[in-house]
Amino acid sequence: RRCQHRSTAMLDVPFLPFCAFLGTLGLLCVAMVGTWCQHWRGGFSLDGSSRTFNWHPVLMVTGLVVLYGAAALVYRIPNTWSGPKLPWKVLHGGLALGAFVLTVLGLAAVFCFHNSQGTPNMYSLHSWMGLGTVLLFSCQWVAGFGAFLLPWAPAWLRALYKPIHVFFGSTILMLSVASCVSGINEKLFFSLKNGTTAYKLLPAEAVFANTLGLLILIFGVLVVGALARPSWKRPDSDSPDSRQ
Amino acid sequence: RRCQHRSTAMLDVPFLPFCAFLGTLGLLCVAMVGTWCQHWRGGFSLDGSSRTFNWHPVLMVTGLVVLYGAAALVYRIPNTWSGPKLPWKVLHGGLALGAFVLTVLGLAAVFCFHNSQGTPNMYSLHSWMGLGTVLLFSCQWVAGFGAFLLPWAPAWLRALYKPIHVFFGSTILMLSVASCVSGINEKLFFSLKNGTTAYKLLPAEAVFANTLGLLILIFGVLVVGALARPSWKRPDSDSPDSRQ
Repeated sequence: RRCQHRSTAMLDVPFLPFCAFLGTLGLLCVAMVGTWCQHWRGGFSLDGSSRTFNWHPVLMVTGLVVLYGAAALVYRIPNTWSGPKLPWKVLHGGLALGAFVLTVLGLAAVFCFHNSQGTPNMYSLHSWMGLGTVLLFSCQWVAGFGAFLLPWAPAWLRALYKPIHVFFGSTILMLSVASCVSGINEKLFFSLKNGTTAYKLLPAEAVFANTLGLLILIFGVLVVGALARPSWKRPDSDSPDSRQ
Repeated sequence: RRCQHRSTAMLDVPFLPFCAFLGTLGLLCVAMVGTWCQHWRGGFSLDGSSRTFNWHPVLMVTGLVVLYGAAALVYRIPNTWSGPKLPWKVLHGGLALGAFVLTVLGLAAVFCFHNSQGTPNMYSLHSWMGLGTVLLFSCQWVAGFGAFLLPWAPAWLRALYKPIHVFFGSTILMLSVASCVSGINEKLFFSLKNGTTAYKLLPAEAVFANTLGLLILIFGVLVVGALARPSWKRPDSDSPDSRQ
């Protein structure tokens, strides 16, 4: 066992530098999705054209991946393990609410684009998966707010619901990353189909957006891995929580 | 704490019935991907046509998702927690090897199809992510074989590598599910583009294959969740392992 402890210690990464790295990676994803839409897809507007659609990837990556990931990691900050929990709960719920608002605006962008073009909504696997993810997220937020922030929930209900909330927290992030990746893939097939810019000829835009997709995947894997890492969880997890 | 234990007990699912459900879901995914390719995509052949391509989704879902998931769950079977470990290691490595062989055949199918059609390989985000997943899987298998099945690895190396192997075990499954979903989405856009069978009109094939995509997602989420579930992990995890 001593041997195991020594070996495990070799893998110990301090949480805060890891978070700085994750934050940088998240900002890079946001910057890249913005650059993709601005530089190659014509920029942004609210006129129902493809420039309205462009808000969709930007808001989804920013809200449902990066801000959501930040919200999910709040309780892994060691400072949250002692002292009053309410401020951290408010931060966790507030970041998640911000992520949710961006997500809903991201949905509005694509529905507005489809409706003004006469394109049907909700037919692709990407859309089914993405809307399912957002519906799960809304249930997660409402249930988390009701169970952990409102004062009426009894301790047994909080204790019962907490592992479910934790499980769906990671699950929703995995689903949102899978949705982003399928959406980027689909958008590139839609946009790059003529002559020298065909997707299969791998023009600069395709390399750029494929790289963005891989970075989003890496971000998601690192956040889910950080959430699952035993040594970054609050020691003696539940006792004070169920009572506040 | 008593209250927490009582609440947690309410969520306890026995592992073996859960596995029977997972097995059924996995077989359903395999049956559905086969039905999709047979009934709507023209069936199977080895002539380099789209009927050769059809082996790609079938082999990937069967190998890199379902068989891979079965291999990953071997150490969650309570019988593996006592007695000699070697037979279980051989089963785990053997199932993973079977999954890997099917995966390589699945790659061969799509490369053969592209080459005989003059289509470039490896341009889409789906292909980058999918090939990255297969490369990670090959490293995972070789490193696992070298560290845990060959007798020479010292205990400290096994203890150091084990959490890495476990982390990548779940990560590779998440990536393979994301690859499957983006691949199904992409294939439907390729195949359904004319008149009454356009993807956006949601013909029966689209509903069927979208449902397949959601079932693959659910299968992946349940396997990753089962792997992460503390009460299904071997108690006192490492000590006998590092020594065998």
